[in-house]
Amino acid sequence: MPPASAALRLRLDLAYDGSAFAGWARQPGLRTVQGVLEDALGALLRSAPPPPRLVVAGRTDAGVHALGQVAHLDLQPAQRAALEAAAGGQPLAARLLHRVRGVLGASGSDVVVLGARPAPAGFDARFSALWRRYEYRIADEFSLLDPLQRARTVWLPGLRLDERAMGEAAATLLGLHDFASFCRPREGATTIRTLQEFSWRRDADGVLVASVQADAFCHSMVRALVGATVAVGRGRLAVREPAALREERSRTSRFPVLPAHGLCLLEVGYPPEGELAARAEQTRARRELHEQAQRPKRGRGHALS
Amino acid sequence: MPPASAALRLRLDLAYDGSAFAGWARQPGLRTVQGVLEDALGALLRSAPPPPRLVVAGRTDAGVHALGQVAHLDLQPAQRAALEAAAGGQPLAARLLHRVRGVLGASGSDVVVLGARPAPAGFDARFSALWRRYEYRIADEFSLLDPLQRARTVWLPGLRLDERAMGEAAATLLGLHDFASFCRPREGATTIRTLQEFSWRRDADGVLVASVQADAFCHSMVRALVGATVAVGRGRLAVREPAALREERSRTSRFPVLPAHGLCLLEVGYPPEGELAARAEQTRARRELHEQAQRPKRGRGHALS
Repeated sequence: MPPASAALRLRLDLAYDGSAFAGWARQPGLRTVQGVLEDALGALLRSAPPPPRLVVAGRTDAGVHALGQVAHLDLQPAQRAALEAAAGGQPLAARLLHRVRGVLGASGSDVVVLGARPAPAGFDARFSALWRRYEYRIADEFSLLDPLQRARTVWLPGLRLDERAMGEAAATLLGLHDFASFCRPREGATTIRTLQEFSWRRDADGVLVASVQADAFCHSMVRALVGATVAVGRGRLAVREPAALREERSRTSRFPVLPAHGLCLLEVGYPPEGELAARAEQTRARRELHEQAQRPKRGRGHALS
Repeated sequence: MPPASAALRLRLDLAYDGSAFAGWARQPGLRTVQGVLEDALGALLRSAPPPPRLVVAGRTDAGVHALGQVAHLDLQPAQRAALEAAAGGQPLAARLLHRVRGVLGASGSDVVVLGARPAPAGFDARFSALWRRYEYRIADEFSLLDPLQRARTVWLPGLRLDERAMGEAAATLLGLHDFASFCRPREGATTIRTLQEFSWRRDADGVLVASVQADAFCHSMVRALVGATVAVGRGRLAVREPAALREERSRTSRFPVLPAHGLCLLEVGYPPEGELAARAEQTRARRELHEQAQRPKRGRGHALS
């Protein structure tokens, strides 16, 4: 724990139903997860500026859900002092957690702070992360349509997708590649990623579930990967075609990007405590290298985590 | 299959998210599951009166969900003829299923017709049923709050319920008893039921789930049974008290009736095909006996299935 005269970084674990959010990132005039959380934290810390800012592991798009999102927050010394004065001996993180839950509403809310704790030395929610894992859910028969799961499941009844072919196609996409064919381009953002896991299974309830893990994802990448393998499952692409399209390194209309509401961020992986700072430094250095390489042709941009 | 000149009974299997319904039973001016389904069926059969009427296995209250609801529908000869004329060789039940799904909306809907088929001889969705099985879901710690499951899970974070004591209390309530202490009284409705299963478990995701099965339930019975055992789990009632309260045979304020949205009808059990008519006759006879016995003091009423 840093001395009271220094900033204190907290790790927040979050879950949300993305249905009624315009994504993670704060946008003027729109309800976003970052906006709702920062406003709640700001209400607690209103006596001690500056307004709190969250840094997040996975900047989810509009409609995408999360059960294992991670963010960090730096409390300035005056904010620490204000919270500690109100804490009555309770640890500061527990006090903040209790109060932010009170502001957000203990029940019925579509965003939940699952936990808050002092971050270990060197921790950065975004740059220390080793990997992000998502799932994508599809119900492909009428008998599988569960109205209670419809907010997180894409309904394609009657398609009867061939999950074996989908799994074979998914396996051909693994590894370190340029995924530009599966990314909505963003200025300065790299499209080179390591796809560590991509598999399809049928759950006990019959729903098709993709598990997708990478060091990081570029914009719309999971939904495009899922779309390409669903095209295989429908017989519209051959098993080897998604990998061939990847090698073309440019966007294609041969498969659709599937809807946001089937997608959920399940977990973010971090290295052991002693390696957090080194990992963050490595990620930042790679990003700067990429930006320098891009600058002459595309100008200054930002990488997507 | 009865001759074309006779009525044809169809069995419908249904699922719904009860959040936006004022329960199963049609009520003027309110959105109910029966109302939405009968209106959809009526739109298909508008050329051939009378308006279709559904008979259901479990008349769920406002806010209660169902994944395995069963209903039946009698198609009159003119309605059979109208549907068959439009069916183009497709079996009549499949044709009706396809068209009613079209009217309800294939996706995004909070009520789904999972299946439709000609009912076996003697089948009555309500009176042939041997049992109804419900589940009730409670998240009793903050770390268990899943925003994607909040429509079907009651949030009582921080209570840390003692599920072992709850299971012990539940077991003492099993069997054939007068459950008047757990029923909101309805004129002429019996409160004598056989509670066949009542158990609590913690699911893999940590959520507490009650499984409750009986031949039939009186009004608010599952939510009162759950409330009594939750009072045990909180240490407000001793393990043996729910059974003692049952023996008093009258409503009590010693435990709460828990909210509707934690409750879901999972399955309805029927006997083998040869025994459907006998079971329906037996249920009806028992109901009439009860009504005759009640009539002098309470007037004519109806039993709850």
